[in-house]
Amino acid sequence: MRDNYREELDDIRGCLVDMANSVGSQLSKATTALLDADVTLADLVIAADDQLDATRESIEQRCFTLLARQAPVATELRTVITAMRIASDFERMGDLAEHVAKVARMRFPDSAVPQEVRPVFLEAGHVAESLVTKAGTVIAKQDVEAALELEEDDDAMDRLHRQLFREVLSEDWPHGVETAIDITLLGRYYERFADHAVSVARRVVYLVTGEHRINAAG
Amino acid sequence: MRDNYREELDDIRGCLVDMANSVGSQLSKATTALLDADVTLADLVIAADDQLDATRESIEQRCFTLLARQAPVATELRTVITAMRIASDFERMGDLAEHVAKVARMRFPDSAVPQEVRPVFLEAGHVAESLVTKAGTVIAKQDVEAALELEEDDDAMDRLHRQLFREVLSEDWPHGVETAIDITLLGRYYERFADHAVSVARRVVYLVTGEHRINAAG
Repeated sequence: MRDNYREELDDIRGCLVDMANSVGSQLSKATTALLDADVTLADLVIAADDQLDATRESIEQRCFTLLARQAPVATELRTVITAMRIASDFERMGDLAEHVAKVARMRFPDSAVPQEVRPVFLEAGHVAESLVTKAGTVIAKQDVEAALELEEDDDAMDRLHRQLFREVLSEDWPHGVETAIDITLLGRYYERFADHAVSVARRVVYLVTGEHRINAAG
Repeated sequence: MRDNYREELDDIRGCLVDMANSVGSQLSKATTALLDADVTLADLVIAADDQLDATRESIEQRCFTLLARQAPVATELRTVITAMRIASDFERMGDLAEHVAKVARMRFPDSAVPQEVRPVFLEAGHVAESLVTKAGTVIAKQDVEAALELEEDDDAMDRLHRQLFREVLSEDWPHGVETAIDITLLGRYYERFADHAVSVARRVVYLVTGEHRINAAG
């Protein structure tokens, strides 16, 4: 039974890594949909979110079954609870990617993102993908050092977020209030996406070390 | 041991109800700080958030201990996991109240909220408080019907949120982009606060009925 338990836990860990990849792919597509005003791609992102919700539910169910059948204690118990939480973080990150896609869809055939701030969103997309890729690696390898690296990426996201506000608030912002609102919400979605990736890494660190070594974000 | 288990679970439930009240009080104060540009009150809200984080951590620790010592199954297991999740929802609602207070603080001695949209935020504050009060009642009494009522309050919040956008996007909005950004973020904070209250109610319904009877929000 112990061996089955380990196998099941490894398998759940594998599902979480897959989920990290899917979430990264969702945000990458959403960013492209946003920058290229590609409504077909936006619709793909929106449609694919259900799959992430289903994966989260399946992981949760398997964790429940593990808890009920194996009654783990100490680190093993923490591992199962952490897996459930990470699945929730990834589901939420999927929602945020969907929100980005919905803004792209809402403004089609126009682009929600004016030329001046395109580089910022392109970069925010890259940083967010890097964060979620690293979060996947942290889960796969329980790598505490890699988890601490995520903090730096998150700082980069914070800088991009501030840069966005500077652009929108500059004296010569010519795009009016509606676009400013879009940019504000989009900036918030990317920032929250990054926060959740950091949160995933923080959960793994706590699991491995028993210490909160990354500060709370968001 | 079974009796102790029940007592401990009842006690945790009581802590969650207290947490609902604290979170409601935090948002109420944050709304007043926002509308009255009351920086002292804003600082109180910001300072008190640590207490909510500590309460969440304490509830989580107690749930962990219950899981490890009692190895509950079926509904009892679900109850403990649900308690942990509800504590997380409340902690996040506390963060959102703090975000509102921080906007009030940032614009002091000015008010972040111009006259035209004051009634909307006043109403959003009332709806949010009503939501969290009902969420507390749902937890205390495991009242499925009350949980379903929360959906209506959440609809009211969505209407207020749309009204806010209409105001900001009206042709004669005289307050510029910075205020529009504040209003957009504030609207988002109230909306997410409401979403989490609905999420709490949904978790209790699922626990009591085994069915997802309230649709996912947010």
